[in-house]
Amino acid sequence: MTAFTPNPALDLVLERTIAVAPEKVWAAWTQPELLMQWFTPAPWKTVACEIDLRAGGRCNTTMESPEGEQFPNHGCYLEVVPGRLLVFTSVMAEDFRPIAAGEGDLPFTGRIEITPAADGGTQYRAIAMHADESGCEQHRQMGFEEGWGAALDQLVALMS
Amino acid sequence: MTAFTPNPALDLVLERTIAVAPEKVWAAWTQPELLMQWFTPAPWKTVACEIDLRAGGRCNTTMESPEGEQFPNHGCYLEVVPGRLLVFTSVMAEDFRPIAAGEGDLPFTGRIEITPAADGGTQYRAIAMHADESGCEQHRQMGFEEGWGAALDQLVALMS
Repeated sequence: MTAFTPNPALDLVLERTIAVAPEKVWAAWTQPELLMQWFTPAPWKTVACEIDLRAGGRCNTTMESPEGEQFPNHGCYLEVVPGRLLVFTSVMAEDFRPIAAGEGDLPFTGRIEITPAADGGTQYRAIAMHADESGCEQHRQMGFEEGWGAALDQLVALMS
Repeated sequence: MTAFTPNPALDLVLERTIAVAPEKVWAAWTQPELLMQWFTPAPWKTVACEIDLRAGGRCNTTMESPEGEQFPNHGCYLEVVPGRLLVFTSVMAEDFRPIAAGEGDLPFTGRIEITPAADGGTQYRAIAMHADESGCEQHRQMGFEEGWGAALDQLVALMS
């Protein structure tokens, strides 16, 4: 497990200490039936989730808008350190196959760091890494902080 | 180490049994001073090489044309099984950071499988995985089979 120092020009970071045990945070991120309950800020929903929890394994979710339109997202895991670190990306699918770039895509790599904190809680750090400043800014404008923060609130509510 | 079945519509494959021991093939792929001597079919050269041999570690080479023009390539390793398997990609740089797509790029993931064969040789299989059929066809037209084959001839000559 390699330490990572975010680059403020390229990376967005959500860091918070939460009163949820590390193993519960891990479960929420890695069990489809749990992930679907918190992953997408309401009133959006996550209506499908496939997880193959290994480097190169698929990490697919389908989001549904309040109007019922569905948005499938494909990706794969890059690094899996049980209970501690989950790295995944939107630029590759199963077996590390590159995904063709398309308009409207948001190419990023996500890094979820789970560190035991006082009183059985978790120091939670979620990082979205981008290729360049414009990709980072686009993700910020799309509401990274608000969206990932609201999803984390839902995770905490679910797992508490 | 997960088995991989190439998809003929998306993947290019070079498979050959060579009279070079697996540990020498591994060395040729993972030691910069060796890699620079065989990686690029002459009269092109590889004039720089940085290797950080871990999942997420950098895998950078600079090629030089016969006219002296240099072409830097960035990438990172995805899976490293010493002596057996090396997976790397051109769509991410160090720490799995996505690389911005640009014109003229050839987005692919490379998979080098090294299997012990009779008489101390190696069953060598190199696979280039692409996002779609057009990317695969572009790589084929660029001379994948000839180029990777000529490089492998150079590896065999160097390590024999």
